[in-house]
Amino acid sequence: MTATAQMLRTHPLDIGIDRAKLEACIEACLECAQACTSCADACLSEKMVADLTACISTNLDCADVCEATGRVLTRQTAWNAEVVQSMLEACATACKACGDECSEHASMHEHCKVCAESCRKCEQACRELLGAL
Amino acid sequence: MTATAQMLRTHPLDIGIDRAKLEACIEACLECAQACTSCADACLSEKMVADLTACISTNLDCADVCEATGRVLTRQTAWNAEVVQSMLEACATACKACGDECSEHASMHEHCKVCAESCRKCEQACRELLGAL
Amino acid sequence: MTATAQMLRTHPLDIGIDRAKLEACIEACLECAQACTSCADACLSEKMVADLTACISTNLDCADVCEATGRVLTRQTAWNAEVVQSMLEACATACKACGDECSEHASMHEHCKVCAESCRKCEQACRELLGAL
Amino acid sequence: MTATAQMLRTHPLDIGIDRAKLEACIEACLECAQACTSCADACLSEKMVADLTACISTNLDCADVCEATGRVLTRQTAWNAEVVQSMLEACATACKACGDECSEHASMHEHCKVCAESCRKCEQACRELLGAL
Repeated sequence: MTATAQMLRTHPLDIGIDRAKLEACIEACLECAQACTSCADACLSEKMVADLTACISTNLDCADVCEATGRVLTRQTAWNAEVVQSMLEACATACKACGDECSEHASMHEHCKVCAESCRKCEQACRELLGAL
Repeated sequence: MTATAQMLRTHPLDIGIDRAKLEACIEACLECAQACTSCADACLSEKMVADLTACISTNLDCADVCEATGRVLTRQTAWNAEVVQSMLEACATACKACGDECSEHASMHEHCKVCAESCRKCEQACRELLGAL
Repeated sequence: MTATAQMLRTHPLDIGIDRAKLEACIEACLECAQACTSCADACLSEKMVADLTACISTNLDCADVCEATGRVLTRQTAWNAEVVQSMLEACATACKACGDECSEHASMHEHCKVCAESCRKCEQACRELLGAL
Repeated sequence: MTATAQMLRTHPLDIGIDRAKLEACIEACLECAQACTSCADACLSEKMVADLTACISTNLDCADVCEATGRVLTRQTAWNAEVVQSMLEACATACKACGDECSEHASMHEHCKVCAESCRKCEQACRELLGAL
């Protein structure tokens, strides 16, 4: 079991959210944030960096949005459905934008390919959790 | 002039967004993030902390959402209207929730009163920027 | 292979740092940040929250320091040994403080026990990477 | 009075730290984090981006370290002198690195000049607070 799952299962509150979907979404957010921070840096080290500036900027946005979403989803004490919903929508939007951008460079840059997969996975996890709220 | 304004005015791109509203919104996000981090900690140090747990949790969410929004708004290189819009909506939602929660304790705790004002200001700045996009 | 490892292995630069230790440290930082955010929230939901305020505050500090450290370690483009070293020392210090604090509540609160383990693991990963620099 | 100052002055605890230096340092951290996020993005939009990749990466590190330091300094509830001290040292180190890097481009890029000033100010604020602890 991951640390995220262990932490959620030892939390004193049960707020009635699908636990598996919540865990999957938090983990997808953290993985995607890390992949995007890493992809931005890998793009920055490519010789053709001038062709990758939109990718870098989109990666940085996506990393920040995913990180904040992962934190909001982790907090159960005063779970606010409207805040959670709007952040999940923002996160799905940022992951869609970044997945699309990274996909365009996936054939040339392996890091963009791996990052695009993390973005797709996170976008889907956000949409599944939105559907389960 | 603030450092935020100086930085925006020396940026090589002009993406056609109302500069004054953008600056005001970035600064409101940063101020609100700081106020919420501080209010969560002040609440944690109150003797009646058990009555303030929802306030603390709402503050922590609001701080994270505001910080991420401030960063996304700062990036002009690949400005994505959908990502910006969804984050502004999430930020206005988080600030509304936190402003409401802090207002309830404003008569007892001066830090909640100051924080509620920062939340109201940030919520309004987000809505004004949304209206100008 | 984790996404973190995949991203590092597809990075165009090889800066000559022990890859296994670097991966382990980044992943320990992210896991610890998540555990600390979650433990702070779980403590906040405990009836005896008034006895856990130092734990919550220490958790919040540790989460922020671990997250920033994970990001700094991820960036290879302009790897600055002094910055990396000072952040690893700050992170080991924050994890030591949080691991000690959470350990005191581990027998009463399972989330503190899980979190303390993440803190110990991250502290050790930071020290091992420091030793390998 | 700034919101940061108002929040600190309404905090229920007085932990005996020089309040003026603490306020100045928190505000310098937040200003520097914003300037660095902005400078990284401005550099990314410059035609000569290929010559600015070290600057961008250093900016991103500095932004993350300053943001985390600002949050740690804001929390008074379980103020841990060792954690605070190590983060202040990491922050001064990151600001020194970023101020040096941005200074090299200050004559060509106004945003680097403004950012370098924020970095110098933050480095100094961290060292002054370290001296007052």
